[in-house]
Amino acid sequence: MSELTIWTYDWVPEGPRGFVRDLRLRWACEEAGLVYAVRTVPFEGRETNHLAQQPFGQVPFLKDGGLEMFESGAGLLHLARKSEKLMPRDPAGEAETVQWTIAALNSIEMVTVPWWFLKVSGADNDGLTGWMGRRLDQLERVLSEREWLAAGRFTVADLLMADVLRVSRVRSFGDRPATEAYVKRATERPAFRKARADQIGHFEAADRKRAEEEEND
Amino acid sequence: MSELTIWTYDWVPEGPRGFVRDLRLRWACEEAGLVYAVRTVPFEGRETNHLAQQPFGQVPFLKDGGLEMFESGAGLLHLARKSEKLMPRDPAGEAETVQWTIAALNSIEMVTVPWWFLKVSGADNDGLTGWMGRRLDQLERVLSEREWLAAGRFTVADLLMADVLRVSRVRSFGDRPATEAYVKRATERPAFRKARADQIGHFEAADRKRAEEEEND
Repeated sequence: MSELTIWTYDWVPEGPRGFVRDLRLRWACEEAGLVYAVRTVPFEGRETNHLAQQPFGQVPFLKDGGLEMFESGAGLLHLARKSEKLMPRDPAGEAETVQWTIAALNSIEMVTVPWWFLKVSGADNDGLTGWMGRRLDQLERVLSEREWLAAGRFTVADLLMADVLRVSRVRSFGDRPATEAYVKRATERPAFRKARADQIGHFEAADRKRAEEEEND
Repeated sequence: MSELTIWTYDWVPEGPRGFVRDLRLRWACEEAGLVYAVRTVPFEGRETNHLAQQPFGQVPFLKDGGLEMFESGAGLLHLARKSEKLMPRDPAGEAETVQWTIAALNSIEMVTVPWWFLKVSGADNDGLTGWMGRRLDQLERVLSEREWLAAGRFTVADLLMADVLRVSRVRSFGDRPATEAYVKRATERPAFRKARADQIGHFEAADRKRAEEEEND
């Protein structure tokens, strides 16, 4: 049995398929060639049914032998320490990779997720639009000067930043060609495509299982 | 000269004094007994005057010999690797510390900072209030069962989480006694008090210098 286990939901509605954050950990394992298993907690009752593993009632969480951790960002940094494919081993390359990983979580996603949350819940999100636009402009400037964020090569920071931008549908946020090209470059990688297809396949298999169970009722 | 240098602004208005994020790095150095210098970039023109060091125009950034990094979270993880006082050295303790450090940035601050941003800019923040309340309730449940977040002891995760909660004025967010006691416990530590006093002193010295320059004009 694999030492690495990625935990996600047993099923989700169609909307979030391809976007649930276990995809980040799948993608990292695929990039690094790390073998992993996928296990599940029930989507129904998720707010309280796995608080011992994830105190905010979310997924994913990651097990690595006896270690267990929640927060996709923490899981990514853990996987990055297992494979140089995800993070260089020299101190400067590592510092730059960690820095941009945290920037994805705390400078970009901290604005894009609340903006998106307000939008999908039908609330007024105008108050965040200017702030988000400035952050995305700053990132556009960076991405117009380099192919990848850190250490002159693809790292876990790109994996996370591209996912943050992709989930936020950055392409609807205005004319930012370097950012668009960056997200395209990252999501055309075979490891991303496999991770995304596997996640969608996982939830489609759950649909089929449900349908069979209903038929057998 | 010290190897470690924390960069902040040369001056800020009174409102943010005691809350600028260089305090996080000062606090970590004080906890760990690490010697550091403080240097500055001008507050005026901050949006563009140090983009080479911080592409979002913010502070702090950290230099450690030839290494340079922005994002206070990345700086904290870097300092945590320099001192066991900030993060245990066993894999389980380290994983738990990183996990809660990322949770502070991406599960709590991702809600509290946009909530606060909307509030101070006079925009409607009702759409985020329920989400923030649920997150703080989940954290309250965790903190009602333990003194510190990770590894049964104070770590860099507590330093960051307590700062996130303190900056967000969590005590105005409702009756959450475990969270209140936790913030109090963390901010009563001598290292926090020194870091906060030093930051306020740094900006007060800038006031005095400005006043002297005006007198000499």
